[in-house]
Amino acid sequence: MKILWVFAHPEQCSLNGSLMAEGLRTLTGLGHEHRVSDLYAMGWKPVVDGEDFGDGAHERLFVGREQERAYRERQLSRDIRAEQEKIAWADTLVFQFPLWWFGPPAILKGWFDRVLVQGFGFGVEGPDGRTLRYGDGGLAGKRALIVTSVGARESGFGPRGIHGSMEEVLFPLLHGTFWYTGMAALPPFVVYGADRLTEAGFSRTTAALRERLRTLDTTEPLPFRHENGGEYDEHLVLRPDIAPDLTGVAAHRARDGEIPPGPREHERAGALAGSRTR
Amino acid sequence: MKILWVFAHPEQCSLNGSLMAEGLRTLTGLGHEHRVSDLYAMGWKPVVDGEDFGDGAHERLFVGREQERAYRERQLSRDIRAEQEKIAWADTLVFQFPLWWFGPPAILKGWFDRVLVQGFGFGVEGPDGRTLRYGDGGLAGKRALIVTSVGARESGFGPRGIHGSMEEVLFPLLHGTFWYTGMAALPPFVVYGADRLTEAGFSRTTAALRERLRTLDTTEPLPFRHENGGEYDEHLVLRPDIAPDLTGVAAHRARDGEIPPGPREHERAGALAGSRTR
Repeated sequence: MKILWVFAHPEQCSLNGSLMAEGLRTLTGLGHEHRVSDLYAMGWKPVVDGEDFGDGAHERLFVGREQERAYRERQLSRDIRAEQEKIAWADTLVFQFPLWWFGPPAILKGWFDRVLVQGFGFGVEGPDGRTLRYGDGGLAGKRALIVTSVGARESGFGPRGIHGSMEEVLFPLLHGTFWYTGMAALPPFVVYGADRLTEAGFSRTTAALRERLRTLDTTEPLPFRHENGGEYDEHLVLRPDIAPDLTGVAAHRARDGEIPPGPREHERAGALAGSRTR
Repeated sequence: MKILWVFAHPEQCSLNGSLMAEGLRTLTGLGHEHRVSDLYAMGWKPVVDGEDFGDGAHERLFVGREQERAYRERQLSRDIRAEQEKIAWADTLVFQFPLWWFGPPAILKGWFDRVLVQGFGFGVEGPDGRTLRYGDGGLAGKRALIVTSVGARESGFGPRGIHGSMEEVLFPLLHGTFWYTGMAALPPFVVYGADRLTEAGFSRTTAALRERLRTLDTTEPLPFRHENGGEYDEHLVLRPDIAPDLTGVAAHRARDGEIPPGPREHERAGALAGSRTR
């Protein structure tokens, strides 16, 4: 396997730094290749601005349009192209960060903002002219894993914990970023109580991380629904017969035992239905 | 009223720039004072690092600890202190940004990461030694409004829309940031289809924004539950009798008709219960 490890912590001598070192050793031991984007060490620029777009910058900046144009014309700034090249190389992406304000630190948010531009990460069209998103798209076939640490206890992030269940708090990343661009979102690896981790707790954590990395290519991803799988209508609303009792972010994840159709199954079903009526 | 308007868009000559100008004019017309943090214009540094913490930086950086110490010792960098001073001055905060990857642009994420430090935004203790959070805390009594724009149509952000309902997608900000620090979270003001807005659509949008600003102090905030309101147990898990059928982020918002108790009502109820048993 080829793994890109994106690291967003200001301090190498930290719990997160130790976990990354252990993680990379484990990947090497398993015979996998890896590359690292250590965003703080790289001095990564997190802010989208006109400098990202080469010579073609206009008087009035339309961000999305400029990102797409500069990508097409190979005029995105060198740092952005380098990250896109690493993503293209990798089959699995690991994003490691401390959870700040229930999301990634700004330096990592800015990596998504600047690197996953239209034409590369999304906005890709399928052969039938449909835009490929949510389970299909520019990064389809890749897998993405979040490795994150929080000071809080696990109970607060449980199904009825006050902070919101961890998977739903991370929905903008897991569903809105990974799945949106086509990547399978693996269940996040979360270190709880990170400020008070004992020596024994650290050992348990590294052992669990090693196991997660060992099973990186066999772990079942989160069962999000495919945009083009037949479960959404033309307004991108879940059809009435799909999980009729659910609303909000919970509705977009198949429940235990429910297997959401993939886009291919849907097309196959459509073709079969067509042949039946003919 | 005193309003701090935090603006996170790289282009003043944009839909968002026009909306802010209209918004500020409206506030002035209503007789309110306002101050603006235009993060791109200020060249706001979004990245938390050792430079934030004055002379006291140590060999190994513990971010949370250093933020708290530097705040207490008035050693946070000047740009951070200036924002904290504006927040202290304001009774209402407006955060305006284009929704990128289902969250705020990095420059705004970094405003939260750097400005809302322990001791100021959170980690404040009440008279009984309990940490004040979720409905109480460093910024209690203030109100916060999100003004955001998305390219997508509204249906995709509805109760069963593919992107997740807007309020739940914004949960890390509305509940995890505003409510966590004590601020009442107002229903977000969202401009859908922002890339294709017609002249008539723009007129409707500015009219709607003016109305939202006119009712800024009377709009009912989102009915999130108070941490110290008696609905959560000592593990910060919702008690079994509260919305027993709900899990995930949806469980932390009272439903229509349900009025979650505030911390004061809870204490009053406790006092009454105590007097009954005596």
